[in-house]
Order: sequence, then C-alpha cells, then structure tokens
Amino acid sequence: MTKKLYHGAAYYPELWNEETIEEDIKLMVEAGINVVRMGEFAWSIMEKEEGVIDLSFFVNMIEKLHDHGIETVMCTPTPTPPIWLSHHHPERLHVDENGQVMSHGSRQHICTNNTYFRKRAAIITEEIAKAVGHLPGVIGWQLDNEFKCHVSECMCETCKSLWHSWLEEKYGTIDALNEAWGTHVWSQYYHSFEQIPQPISTPFLHNSALKTMYQLFSYEKIAEFSDEQAAIVRQHSQAPITHNSTTFFHVDNERLYKHLDFASFDTYAERSNFASYLFNCDLWRNFKSGKDYWVMETSPSHSASLESYAAPHANGYLKAEAVASYALGGEAFCYWLWRQQRTGCEQPHGSVISAWGKPTVGFENVKEVDAARKELEPVITTTRPAQAEVAITYSDRARAFLKTEPHRDLDYRSLIIPFYERILSAGYHRDLIPEGAKLEGYKLLFTPIVHYLSHDYLQQATKFVEEGGVWIVGPLTGGRTENHTIHTDAALGKLEQLAGVETLYTYPMEGTDSYGEFMGVKASLSLWSSVFQPTAGKAVGTIKGGNSDGAAFMTEHKVGKGKIVMLGSLPSGESGDLLLKKCVDHYAKEADIQLKTDVSRGTIVAPRIRKGEIIWVIVNMDGNGGTVSIPDGGKDRFTGEELTKGQYEVGPFQYKVIVFPMNKDEELGNNQLVDSVQQ
Amino acid sequence: MTKKLYHGAAYYPELWNEETIEEDIKLMVEAGINVVRMGEFAWSIMEKEEGVIDLSFFVNMIEKLHDHGIETVMCTPTPTPPIWLSHHHPERLHVDENGQVMSHGSRQHICTNNTYFRKRAAIITEEIAKAVGHLPGVIGWQLDNEFKCHVSECMCETCKSLWHSWLEEKYGTIDALNEAWGTHVWSQYYHSFEQIPQPISTPFLHNSALKTMYQLFSYEKIAEFSDEQAAIVRQHSQAPITHNSTTFFHVDNERLYKHLDFASFDTYAERSNFASYLFNCDLWRNFKSGKDYWVMETSPSHSASLESYAAPHANGYLKAEAVASYALGGEAFCYWLWRQQRTGCEQPHGSVISAWGKPTVGFENVKEVDAARKELEPVITTTRPAQAEVAITYSDRARAFLKTEPHRDLDYRSLIIPFYERILSAGYHRDLIPEGAKLEGYKLLFTPIVHYLSHDYLQQATKFVEEGGVWIVGPLTGGRTENHTIHTDAALGKLEQLAGVETLYTYPMEGTDSYGEFMGVKASLSLWSSVFQPTAGKAVGTIKGGNSDGAAFMTEHKVGKGKIVMLGSLPSGESGDLLLKKCVDHYAKEADIQLKTDVSRGTIVAPRIRKGEIIWVIVNMDGNGGTVSIPDGGKDRFTGEELTKGQYEVGPFQYKVIVFPMNKDEELGNNQLVDSVQQ
Amino acid sequence: MTKKLYHGAAYYPELWNEETIEEDIKLMVEAGINVVRMGEFAWSIMEKEEGVIDLSFFVNMIEKLHDHGIETVMCTPTPTPPIWLSHHHPERLHVDENGQVMSHGSRQHICTNNTYFRKRAAIITEEIAKAVGHLPGVIGWQLDNEFKCHVSECMCETCKSLWHSWLEEKYGTIDALNEAWGTHVWSQYYHSFEQIPQPISTPFLHNSALKTMYQLFSYEKIAEFSDEQAAIVRQHSQAPITHNSTTFFHVDNERLYKHLDFASFDTYAERSNFASYLFNCDLWRNFKSGKDYWVMETSPSHSASLESYAAPHANGYLKAEAVASYALGGEAFCYWLWRQQRTGCEQPHGSVISAWGKPTVGFENVKEVDAARKELEPVITTTRPAQAEVAITYSDRARAFLKTEPHRDLDYRSLIIPFYERILSAGYHRDLIPEGAKLEGYKLLFTPIVHYLSHDYLQQATKFVEEGGVWIVGPLTGGRTENHTIHTDAALGKLEQLAGVETLYTYPMEGTDSYGEFMGVKASLSLWSSVFQPTAGKAVGTIKGGNSDGAAFMTEHKVGKGKIVMLGSLPSGESGDLLLKKCVDHYAKEADIQLKTDVSRGTIVAPRIRKGEIIWVIVNMDGNGGTVSIPDGGKDRFTGEELTKGQYEVGPFQYKVIVFPMNKDEELGNNQLVDSVQQ
Repeated sequence: MTKKLYHGAAYYPELWNEETIEEDIKLMVEAGINVVRMGEFAWSIMEKEEGVIDLSFFVNMIEKLHDHGIETVMCTPTPTPPIWLSHHHPERLHVDENGQVMSHGSRQHICTNNTYFRKRAAIITEEIAKAVGHLPGVIGWQLDNEFKCHVSECMCETCKSLWHSWLEEKYGTIDALNEAWGTHVWSQYYHSFEQIPQPISTPFLHNSALKTMYQLFSYEKIAEFSDEQAAIVRQHSQAPITHNSTTFFHVDNERLYKHLDFASFDTYAERSNFASYLFNCDLWRNFKSGKDYWVMETSPSHSASLESYAAPHANGYLKAEAVASYALGGEAFCYWLWRQQRTGCEQPHGSVISAWGKPTVGFENVKEVDAARKELEPVITTTRPAQAEVAITYSDRARAFLKTEPHRDLDYRSLIIPFYERILSAGYHRDLIPEGAKLEGYKLLFTPIVHYLSHDYLQQATKFVEEGGVWIVGPLTGGRTENHTIHTDAALGKLEQLAGVETLYTYPMEGTDSYGEFMGVKASLSLWSSVFQPTAGKAVGTIKGGNSDGAAFMTEHKVGKGKIVMLGSLPSGESGDLLLKKCVDHYAKEADIQLKTDVSRGTIVAPRIRKGEIIWVIVNMDGNGGTVSIPDGGKDRFTGEELTKGQYEVGPFQYKVIVFPMNKDEELGNNQLVDSVQQ
Repeated sequence: MTKKLYHGAAYYPELWNEETIEEDIKLMVEAGINVVRMGEFAWSIMEKEEGVIDLSFFVNMIEKLHDHGIETVMCTPTPTPPIWLSHHHPERLHVDENGQVMSHGSRQHICTNNTYFRKRAAIITEEIAKAVGHLPGVIGWQLDNEFKCHVSECMCETCKSLWHSWLEEKYGTIDALNEAWGTHVWSQYYHSFEQIPQPISTPFLHNSALKTMYQLFSYEKIAEFSDEQAAIVRQHSQAPITHNSTTFFHVDNERLYKHLDFASFDTYAERSNFASYLFNCDLWRNFKSGKDYWVMETSPSHSASLESYAAPHANGYLKAEAVASYALGGEAFCYWLWRQQRTGCEQPHGSVISAWGKPTVGFENVKEVDAARKELEPVITTTRPAQAEVAITYSDRARAFLKTEPHRDLDYRSLIIPFYERILSAGYHRDLIPEGAKLEGYKLLFTPIVHYLSHDYLQQATKFVEEGGVWIVGPLTGGRTENHTIHTDAALGKLEQLAGVETLYTYPMEGTDSYGEFMGVKASLSLWSSVFQPTAGKAVGTIKGGNSDGAAFMTEHKVGKGKIVMLGSLPSGESGDLLLKKCVDHYAKEADIQLKTDVSRGTIVAPRIRKGEIIWVIVNMDGNGGTVSIPDGGKDRFTGEELTKGQYEVGPFQYKVIVFPMNKDEELGNNQLVDSVQQ
Repeated sequence: MTKKLYHGAAYYPELWNEETIEEDIKLMVEAGINVVRMGEFAWSIMEKEEGVIDLSFFVNMIEKLHDHGIETVMCTPTPTPPIWLSHHHPERLHVDENGQVMSHGSRQHICTNNTYFRKRAAIITEEIAKAVGHLPGVIGWQLDNEFKCHVSECMCETCKSLWHSWLEEKYGTIDALNEAWGTHVWSQYYHSFEQIPQPISTPFLHNSALKTMYQLFSYEKIAEFSDEQAAIVRQHSQAPITHNSTTFFHVDNERLYKHLDFASFDTYAERSNFASYLFNCDLWRNFKSGKDYWVMETSPSHSASLESYAAPHANGYLKAEAVASYALGGEAFCYWLWRQQRTGCEQPHGSVISAWGKPTVGFENVKEVDAARKELEPVITTTRPAQAEVAITYSDRARAFLKTEPHRDLDYRSLIIPFYERILSAGYHRDLIPEGAKLEGYKLLFTPIVHYLSHDYLQQATKFVEEGGVWIVGPLTGGRTENHTIHTDAALGKLEQLAGVETLYTYPMEGTDSYGEFMGVKASLSLWSSVFQPTAGKAVGTIKGGNSDGAAFMTEHKVGKGKIVMLGSLPSGESGDLLLKKCVDHYAKEADIQLKTDVSRGTIVAPRIRKGEIIWVIVNMDGNGGTVSIPDGGKDRFTGEELTKGQYEVGPFQYKVIVFPMNKDEELGNNQLVDSVQQ
C-alpha cells in the first residue's frame, strides 16, 4: 500500500544544458515535483555508437535529483532505436498492414520482434539496470514507452515466421488449425503452417479466425518483449517495474501487467470526457490487485503535436483529476512533460515550464495539485479504496474480436464507456476488472460486448452466481468461439443452458422497428441482437414489433443463490438509456448493493476505508459544482465540521473529505482490505 | 420456356459432417427447396493437392439430393484457387490500381488471366464436367462465382502483356493508336505497343482513351475466361450454363452472357430499394432473349459480413420478391445461403438454417415463398411475360465511359435507376435492354447516359424510328467517340444531323441559374448539358436564364414514321421529376403505349400472356399495400371472383393474379410470344 | 512599362491539321487574340525519338501567326517528357511521399532533379532557343508549365542524394545539424548526412525541422531547374522569360521569379471567389517590382477535367476580370485554351473554340474582353498602378512552415485570403508583397501567419517602423526559429523586446471561452495564440475569461517614428470580423493612409497615375452592381462627363474610368512612379 503520494513529471535533461537543468530542478522544487521519469527516448545518448555505452549522465542526474528530494522512475529507451540499428536494415523495420515499411525519423519504427533489435535492447537494458539499478534515487522502472501506440500488428518477415511458430504451438497440427478455422470455407485450406498468410491485402475480408489470432499473436509477442526486459532489470534492481499503457494501444493490458509489478496509464482526456479519465482509474486499479496504480502521463494543460491539439484544461480541473485519482487508488500523478520540447514533433504540447524556462498556462494548476496532494496524503496513505460491489468486465481480447468483426463500425471503447458511465453517474462505487480477475467480493457483474466467453470465465461467473451474485450478460456476448467461429450447438453455446434460454434468432435490430419493454419502459432496440425464448428461466424484457414480436430480449434465471440475466440487445436513445438505468438499479437492489451515493452528475464520491472508518473523497469533475447527500455521522476532515444528514453543495472542481464510522456489515465486507491497511 | 418454378439455395455440404447433411436435406424438403447450387468455393476439397482430384463427394451429394427430389446447379470452383496455386507465386496474384499485390486468404486473389491459373482452371473444370455432367440431378451449371465482384482491372505483368496484344489487335499499328488516342496531347506518344502503360499511378489523370480501353480490355478478358470454361463444360454436359452477375461487378454483362445459355443475378437490395430489385428482373430477362432468368442469390433475411450488414427484410417481403420475379420472367428464386457459415468472413449473413441447425428469422418467410411458388406455378409455366413496348438501354460499356469521365462523381447506376424508376412507378410495362438488343416490338426507346453511341446502335435506332418508334436520346448521350475522344464534326457527331439539331454549347448547368421549360413545367437544369438549336427539327423544351437563355434543351424531329427526341440536360429536383414524368407520359401517348396500368406507387403489375389471355400478376412491394385499377372482364385466378371495372386494394406484400381475355391488337403485338407459349 | 495590352490564348497547333490551323487563325483574328502561348507540352513532336530534333513546325507556326499580327510566347516542353525518357527507367520517375512511383501517362511524372532528365531538358531547350529565339514573332518565353502543380516533394534516390548535399552545404557538419534540429529528442541523432531520411512513412510525425527543410530543399531545386533553363534561353534570345505559377503549387514564388524577367499566374477562381483572383493580381504585381505581370491562363468560361468542373462564368464576368487585371498591373490576359482538347484528360475544359471549330459558350465574353482591352489600352499604357500604402506580406516559406505544423488543419491560403479580403473590401489600395520586398513607400504593414521571421525581415521591418510605419504583427507570427524549433530566449524570440512585450503563454484559444476586447468590440478568440504582458509597450486589446483573463492579446509600442502592434490571437466569427476591421481602420488612420475609396462590397477601384493625374478604374466584380463615392473634380474618361462629388452607381460587371487631377502630396508619394511613366 501507498506510503507516500507522488507528484511527478517526464523529464528529458539529456536535451538541455547544465544551466537549464539547474533552473529546472529549482522550479521542480517550487512546483512540488517529487519524482521524475527519465530515459525512455535517450538511446542515442546512452549508446551513440553501437556498442559504446555511457550512462554516466543519467547516473549523475539521478543522484543530483535525489539530492534535491526528487526520486526517479528510470526507463529503458527501446521505443526509439538509434539510426545505427535501422540504417541499411529495412528488414528490421515495422511493416504496416498495407505493406508500407516504416522509416527512421519518428519512433516505434523497428519491429520489436526483430532478433537483432531484441539483442541490442537486452544489452542496453542490462547496462542501464546495472548502472542505476542500485541507486537510492531509483524507486521504479518503466519499460519502453507506450507499447504499440503508433503501430498495430507488424507484417514483417520476422513476424511472419514467429506467427507460424505461434500457430504451430497453439494448434499442434495444420489439420487442427484447418478444422478450427474452417479453412475449406473459401478453399483457404493450408498444407503447412508456413503457408498461412499474415492478414495483408486481399480482395475481400480475411477469415475471422486468422484476423483475430494475428491480433492475439501480436498481443502475446509485445508482452513477451516486456517480460524479457523485466527479467533483465530484476537481475540488477529491486525497484518495482511498470509500463505506461492505455486502452487505445494494441496490447492486451491484462497479459502485459501479468509479469510487471505495478500498473500505470497515460491519459489525455479533455474535461468534457472526464468519465474516460475515471474509467482508467477504475480499471488500472484492478490490473495489479492490491497495488496502487500510477497516472504516468497527463498534460498539465493540453495535449498537442504539430498536427493536432486539445483545448487547455479550465483552471481547477487538473486538481480535480489529481484528487480523484489519488482517491481511487493512484499513488502518483505525473505530467508529460516538464519542459516544453524545443524540437521534434510535440513542441506545442502542454508542459509545466516553457522551452524558454517560464511558467506555462498550466503552472498555477500544477501548484494547486501539489497543495491538494499535501492535504490528502495523510488520508490516502492510511486508507484503501473500499471494495466495490459492482464489477464490469473489461477485455482487450474482446476488443480484438470486435476489431475483426465490427458489424458496421463498432468500437469496443465507444461501446463500453457509456456502459461504465451509466453506472458511474448513478453513484455506484465500481470496478472495471480484467477477464481473469477473481470475482470474490462482488455482488453484481456486468459482461457486455465480449464476443467470446472463455471456459474459465464461464466457470468463474457460474460460481459467482451460485454463491449469490447477479450476472448480467450481454449484449453482444458469448456468440463466438475461441477461434472466432460460430457455435454449432446453440447461438451462445454453453451459456444458453446455463442461463435457461434458447436463442431463437440473431440479427441486427436497427431499422426493423423493434422495441424492447422492461418494467414499463419501452425503447428502440439496436445492435446485432439475440432473440430469446426462456427454457428454464423467464422473460423479463419483451420485444414489440419487428421480426420477433413477442419474444424476449431480456431474461432472468435463478442459479444457486444468484441469478443470470441475459441482455440480448441494446436499448437505444433516451428511453434506451432510461431502460438500462432501470435495469441497473433493479438488479443492484436485488444484489443488495450498499456502496451507492446520491450524488449529482459531474461529481463523484470515492469511498476509502480503514479500520472502523469509511472516508468519502468527494470531487466535482465537471466544473459546474454539484450536490451530494450525506448521511448522519459524517465529519469534514479538513474543517472538522460535524455533518447532519442532508444534501451538501460541492463547488466547481472542489473536493471534500468526509469521515464516517464504519458499521459492522461494511467492515465484514471489507475485512481483508481493512487488514491490509492495518499492516 | 419455363416448365417448372425453382426454389433454391446455395449449399456447402463440403463444410459439414454427414449427420448435418442428413438434417439439411430433411429441412430443405420441409422448406420446399427443390434445387441447390454447389461447388463454387470447393476447389481445395476437389483438388486438395495439385493434380490429385477427387470429386466423389459431389457425385454422391448430387445423387443423394436427387433422391430427395432436389436438383443441382453445379459450379466450377475457380473464384477460390487453393494455396498450392498462389504460395510462392506472387506473379500469379491480382494487382490493384495502386500496385498492391493481393494475398491468399479471401477470394479472387489470383489474376484470371494468368496462364498457369487458366491451365489449372481448365483441368479442374473438365474433371468436374466429366464427373457430374451426365448425372440426372445436374440441371445446370454456374461458371465461377460473381466474376470481378471484389476486384476491378488487374495490373499484373500478365495483364500488361495481354493488354499490349489486345491493343495491337484492335489498332493494328501504333500510329493508328496514337492518332485515335491523340497521344501527342501531353507528349504521351508511343513508339510501340510495348511502351503503353497500364492505368497505374500518375501525378494527374491518364488519357481518357487509355482508361476506357483498359476497362473494355478487362471486360473482354473475363468474358473470354467464361467462354473458355463454358466450352469445356459443354463437351461433357448438356445442362445449360450460366453465371451469377450483377450491375456492380466489373464485367460487361451483355458480352458475358453472349456464349452462356441463361442469365442469372445476385441481389441483396433492401426493401426500401425494391426498384433496384425489379431493375434486375427487367434487365436480366433481356440478356438472353426468350430464356427465363434466375435469381441465383438473395438473402432470406439480411446480407452481412464481419464488417457490414443490412436490416433483415420485414416479414412478407421475401414472398413479394419471389412473386415479382417469377412473374417478370424468373425461373428460379434461390437463397444465399442454406446454412449459416460457421467460419470465414460471412458468418453473420442471413441464411435459411442457422449454423446450429435451427430455423432462422427468415425461415417462415422462405416457407411463404414456397407456398406462393406452388400457387403460381400453373400460371407462370403456361404463360410468358408480355412484350414490353417501352425500352431503356442499359450498357456496361457506358458505365466504363462514365467511370473514366465521372464529371464530379457521377455513377452510372445512380443515374439510370431513377430513370427506370420513373417509368416503373408510372405503371408502364418495360424492358431494360442491352445495347445490342433487337428493337422489334418496342414503340418507345430511351437512351440516357450513353457517352458513346456505336455505329450499330445508331443504325438500329434509326431503323426503329423510321418504322414508327419514338426515340428519346439523352442526357449525356452521344458526346464521345469510340475512343473516348471528342467528335470534331459536331458535339454529338452524326447524331445531330439525324436528330435535326445543332449543339451550340456543352457545359455543366449546375450553378448557372438555368431552367428548362417543357409543356408548362419549369425545372432547374443540371448535369453536363448540350444546348440545342434545331436545324430540321423543332424546340420543345426551352432554356430560361443562365448562359444560354432562349436556346433549347429538348427538341423533336420527325424521321420516317417516328420521331427523335433530344434531351440535352437533366431537369432536377421535384419539378424536374414532374417535367420528366410529363415527358415520359407525353411520348408514351404519342407512341401509343398500351401496356400501362393505373397502379399506386409501391405496387406493380407484371403482365403475362398466353393464347387469348392476358394475366396480371399484381404484387405490393413496399409493404404499405396499394390500389390498382382493373378494367372490365378480369377474373381473380385464385378466388374465382369476376371483377368489374374499378379500383381494387392490394394488401401489404399481397399478390393477386387476374386473368383477362386478350383483344385482337394485343394478340397481334405479342404473336410471336404467344406462339412460343403454345409450343 | 506596358506598351500594349495583350489578349492571348494557349494554342496547341501540333495537335491539329493544317486546315484546322487556318480556321483557328481566322477565328483568333475575329476574337481579337494578339498573342499565343505554344509548345509547353510538345516535346514528343519536337523530339519524337531521342536525339532527333525537328522544330520546323514551330518556326513556321510562329511566322504564320506573326504574319497575322499574332505574337508568340514560346515554351520549353519539359513538363511532359516523352516515353523514351521514362520507359524502362523507373529510377527517373517521381516518387510520392508514400513511396508510390509515378508512371508515364499524365505529366510531371519524371523527377526534375534527375540528372539525365536535366541533360535532355537542357538539349531540347537550347535547340528551341536557337531555332526560334531570334524570330520577331517571339515576344517572350515561358519555362516549362506550372512547376510542381501535380506533385509535391519527390522521394526518389536522386533527390535523397541531393538532399544530403543540400543539408551538408547548409549546416556544414552533421553535429551542427543535430544541434539545430535537436535530433536527440527521439534518438533521431545522425552520424552522417547520408543517414538522414526523406520525410517518408513513419509510425508518427517526423521532426519538424526535417519536414520543413525538405520543403525548402524542394523549393530550391525546382528554382534551380528554372534558373538553368533561363540561362540557356538567354544565350539565344532577347525576349523576356517567365513562368506561370500560382499560390497552390509547391514552389517558393519569390525565389522562383528571382532570375526570371517577368511574373505570370494561372487562375481558375470562380466568380464567387473573385477576391482570390484579385489576390493574385495584387501579389504577382510585386514579384517583379516595376514589371507588369501576365495572367497566363484563365478559362473563358469554366475549368474542367474528366473528374471535376466548375460552373461557367456568368456572362460579363470575364470582362470584369480582364479589366481588373489590366488596371492592377496586368499586361496580358490569356485563356487556357484556344481550341477544346479532342483527347487527353481535359477535354471538358472551357475553351474559346470547340473541338469541332465552333464558338463556345464563352466566345461572346471573349469578344467583350477584346472590346474592353481596346478601350482601355490608351489609359493603361500611359499610366502605372499607384503606389500602395498598405502592404501584407505573402510568403511561400511561411506556407511550408504551416504545412509542417498545421495545428489541426490550418492552410496558409485559407488564413491569408480573408485577411486580404478584409483590407480589399474596406476600399484600401493594397500590395501583397514577398518577404524580401523593399518596404519603402508603405505606411502600414501586416505580417500575419509567418511562423518564422527571418533576421533580414526583422531588420527591414524595424527600419520601416523607425521611419514612421505602423507594423501589425501576427497572429501566428514569429514563434519558430529558422529550423522550425522553439525559441529558448522568449516565445517570439527577438521580436518580443522590439515590440515591448513578454509572451506569457502560448496555447490554443478555441474552446476556452476566451474573448478579446479592442476599442469596445468584443469577440471570441481563436487559433493558437500568444498571451502578452506589455513590458515597454501597452495593452490595447484585453483577454476576458478563459485561462488568461486580464492579459493582453493586442499591444502597441512606439518605436522611432512608428509603432509595432502585436496581434496575438485571431478574433473570430462576425464580431471578430468587426474587431479586425476596426483594427485595420484605426491603424490605417494612424498611419495616414490616403488611398482608400468608399466603394460598396463587390466593386473595386484600381488607382493608376501619371504626371498630374490619378485615374480610377472602377469595376463591379460580383455581378450585383454597386456604388462608389467620387470626390469633386473627376471626369469620366469614356463619356467625357464632369463629375461632382457624390455616390455613383456601377452596373453589374460594368467598368468606368474616372480621371482626377493629382494633388501635390499624392504626386510626391508617387514621384518615382510618375517618372517611370514619363519615360
């Protein structure tokens, strides 16, 4: 658990002279920066010529910063291979899906699977780990930077060969693959693994299995590179290792963090999109269970490059972001970047200090963050986020399936965020959890948009239901097999029997004048949908009109002490939103959800606990201010005011900390957590 | 003529096990399926390894189906060449206009002009023809599948060389080509055929002649492949041969069907677009004159792939489609596909049976079709579609000219379908006819959007006019020569003298505030237009405003017993629609068109004849129901009711068959047809 | 100065037979054409086979035209290299930024930097110069045609090597480049010039320095080719040399015209866009100071190709264009093209005569131009455009910087034209001047959208201000160094001290609710902005709201006898327009601008002078007619009417010439000019 709250910035001292560095450190101290991240793009400085490695600059930097009370997260510099690695070596370069070979000049241009790249990456990583791994200033490591942020699957010859081996390992024999993929469908049939193409240009679409498997292959390979780097670092350093990722990059975050020590994310969401920001907090908290996450990059004001930009944050928003994150489990809140780039392609990006060494438009906001951090530190470091009772499954593998099969232009993020937002804005404390997460402690589980439900997932979810949980499945969930093929036993495979339904039909509901009715709310149905007929369960949502008038789009079925709710379609529009809200509230009540606050949209409550106490961190995120209903017994942590039950106002971007005594039941539910806080 | 009505489905038994096949056959019988199409994607099954051909599976399948009363259209499997044909042979692959080389993994990835492909295609075709050509179950053949549906012109080296030969054959000498194409225009001048590029990347546009000729070359080559396959099949089978095409693919359908035995089309138009569906019926009926056509593919509910989908048909629409097609000359109505694909990239596509063997959302509609087929069979098989008096020329060559010269973004289909729809919705029985069609039997001929009018076409049309026909020419017709160059004698070449006009100017009318007035209706003029001054003829439509105030956009000129009407521009908007409707009705009256029914928009009447009788098949296509005016003497074929003159209602998607005695004149006009029915 | 007004057309006699040529000449005389441009696409005629050059056709043509009173501008034919230059020589072809290699078949497909191309270009140019350079009919030369109109920077191997040499010459050592570009930023660091890539495909953006420098390199290379050609022509001909350019092409016009004798432009702006047309006139007049420019190409009616078109000009507009240009300093007004192309890809383009030898829709308008030309000639040839007092800097180098760094999708032209239009429509006589232009004679200088202000420019502008000028700087001006990096002394570098401001922040203002207030007008602020705090100067425009409430977006600072006004942001919307208009009028008054007329929007006044007289050429450009206020003492040049002070009407597309006696002051300001008229 967190011993300290970090407030940091990405720092590139290798690009500036000594005088500027002195100035920087002075200003960092002024701004309350207590950690920097360094080195991730500095390979050409560290190893200017192949084999000639000199890390003294960074050793000195780390020590100098440490002397000023600033700690360091050290990075491996592999996202930006020097020219000596790529020049005259086109075979080492990343190849995109159109066969375009990348050039030196930006970053991520070399294929991370290239053998020689891997060799040189291992050498520089080991040298860095040796040189700085033991320094007291080094409190953590970041591997590479934003894996696969600019590139997706690579189509180079190295990848082709690895792809064949990966397939062979996965399927064993070519006939097993042919059968699994149904390759006879368009005479695609392969005689050997060596014949299987990468998903490059074809007159029409590739086989879905091939498309999905290539993504999973690519996910696995980048994670292997991460594992490899982590293993090297660990030989020379005790400091924990992370990687800064997002839900946009072409990685499987769950797999990626498996062998890392803590999780961190980068975010540049604008204020209007604060739900996306919170989505990250609620998800990253759960990639490494029990470990606090880091916000590794966010702009002090606005993101930008030569060709794009966002509007700067309104004054006050940065503080709200920082407070929300610290409260939701973030150990650090770090900026990209400290000093504005003088050159390159991100010169216009917001920074703490300008290229000419002056405070930027974000500087005062950074100081506000620091004040908040100092005020919150005693609260945060003695508590832990309360155990959420509501969970939503997040899956980068589901994202891959949807990329292969987007129907028209469905996008995983765009589908799951409104789902999340509905639960957020209704005031539920919630977790976004990876597919493989344990389900203990939850009472209500949502599994939307997971085309393929794994055997393990089904088992866990069944156990969860049997023990009393309510599981809401769908829409767009369960209709594909592991190999992205169609089930041949039933539309949703084994799930149907479990859920006590038969899927009559699956088809797109848009434009068919089909409505769904649930508890008196009627809404237009959209998305590719499953039409149900209960077998053991019962219909709770009925279709009106269209091709399946009278059949069910929602069913429920008691299993053990719990219940499986099937949601076969997506109610849309304003009334669809109402219907889904009703659905959430209804089943939250059934599941006996306690951690819900009555808070106005745009303001959030992050509950934290310690022995005998629940602490609410309240933050207004939208800048409009809001209200929150507070029960009896609370006390304002900062003003000391004893609060009576009632509705309280929260000013624009204001935060408050309210402390409540914890009742027995709550303590029980959070036992394990409370224990961990006590340690 | 039709002896039987077929109700069929595309079937891929090679992808399923024996048990599933048994189940399929049982369900086919239940659904009233009496014909299947098989084998078009099965090359890898038939010839798993190069040279090892085994067709026993299909021989058995055909026999087994035949035993259950289901006949077979056998296909050649050339759209999906096996991996042994493409692996390590990039030179055999299709190359698109950007130079992108296709990969194995989808279909149509090999260039159909590749010599080795042609050799292997001939071998497998001959083996299939030998193996199944004599089987009693085989009632027809389909060559390949949807030629050029995913690819257009190929830019491979083989094509380059064939292009040079094709040009040499066409032009004889390089100087003839240089002169015809005017190659000195930008110093494009060629010294030898070998120097002429394919229409690949250039800084600006290619010469129009080169662009158009490359399309015609490609049209010819794919037709030659079809001819070659047909000749092989004919050596071993008596069954008639077809190919399933559309107006979207990169083929010249008129040329393609020249050496085939019957025509068939694939259609996935949505209900709102039923005019497109009928367009196909009215066109395909005329590709092989006197031969009924087939609807070879349509979805029982909705089309879809991993990346797209259409809304499922409303219940009832499928039946309306089938009835309309049977009535308009369709011998068969077939689905794509019988059983939902388990794998590949078209898994979400609508089917009759799901991948798990259950009826889909379309199943009941399929059964409705079967009931209608049975009810109609006695009517359809004893009659023939009445001879249309109105014809509209359809030309895939005109489409090629427009692709080379789209002005802004004109598309041939988008221009011609509204033209057709205007005539359809006004209640005229009509034909869409290819450029080379005989004009006997017609009274009114439309020739819109044919940039180049061939010498033969002009001759035939002139004869048609001299014998009494009314020929409406334009817009966008006649302004280009065979080589896509500009005439140097007159804007529209020889046509002008024939039509008694001089074209003063040609220019785009949009944005020039030009209006056209015809018979009291005034409408904004659009499209690249010809401005006329009558020489021998007279102005009937006058331009108001703009750059050519007072000149004519419509003229007419008596020639022999008939008349040539020039339409130089496209009246647009609602009033343009009114003007064109007026034009159609006016000249239909002048041409003494009889076969017109007073029917509400969305409902159609398909007139059929036999000795002494005219039969109206009435169908509501839009699902809103409608009305039709029926003259005295009709009798409802199914209810037996004698009808008095009046307006009758037709329910949503309802069909009716009304029988009338035929009068003398009608009999005369349809003499030949009636004879053919009597045979 | 102009001795005669030209009225011309592009002519391609090489594409037509002798009879047609005879007809053409007759029609030219009828249309009043007195000059033609020839030969720019005729290389394949001149040198059909490599090394076999025959120019007799053109020699004869020039003589024949001369015999009919038609003079010739002869061209070098290098935009369209013959097939013998490209066939089997892919290494000579232009390569675009995606690595796509161009093909023969259009134009500009060969890289103009290719050594062998340069050699053959030199040979054909020299032969042409020798053959026709001495002919009395040849009154001028055009080099090539529209350099870089279809292609931008080339990525071929020749260019790569020249790029490396160019960089070496510019930076001297690789370390100087590394430092200037800050290449360590993403480990881009280079060990040798040979390693530096061209700006081809990368996963993300290239370094800004590399992107901008490659554009400047390309600018320089095409200008060198022009210089090379000019030097050859000059050895054999006295006739002045030009090139026909635009502000769209990928050239630096200022650099291009440096070694040419007069400037000319091509324009196809539609009537609604007449400000763009006038923009060209006001700019091209200043590329070769004191030399009249030519309108080398404009359509007599409409531009078009196979794939695009514009609406034809309304009758009368062509005349207005011609009159405006003659009055603003144009010596010639020439059409593209005389006779419609029979073949190629520009067949639909408007012409004077159709391909079949008849007048086109534009013909009567051409005759109107000729009548106007004849009427104006005595006025124009005895006067010169009055010296403008207001100048706006136009810079193709600034355009390159903005292409590298467009923020979102800023486009230089789209930003500068509204700026120009505001000054135009307010009735100011104005110059658009290149960066290096002398500033003598001006009183008010605008420098918007110049990311990089050169040392020379700063020096000249400072001198201008010190001597009494008002310099309005911004928005988006001065924030980048020569190498497209960020200043490290201050946001705007040296400019800040000069202007007496400190830039507090730079960031995008959109979406931040920031308003600017200047002289009582309040408007929303947009664009990437500089927020000022006056140091020596004072705030005149204040920011309200947003992140910088209370700071300045406009400041002014007295320097010497003049003033520097900083404009840090772009006021937007209707009130933004008002604010900027107020700004222009306020500072025009301060600067004591005299040459302003009170004229309604859509009508312009072009003032010309000669000893003792000012002549106003008034033209209505928008076809709506307008009004102009005329002071006492004027006389209508054509009607002879003496005008009293008052508002006069101008009919649609009408022009008038009003003569005034010049007062002392005016004469003084225009002294030098008047002298030049007297010579």
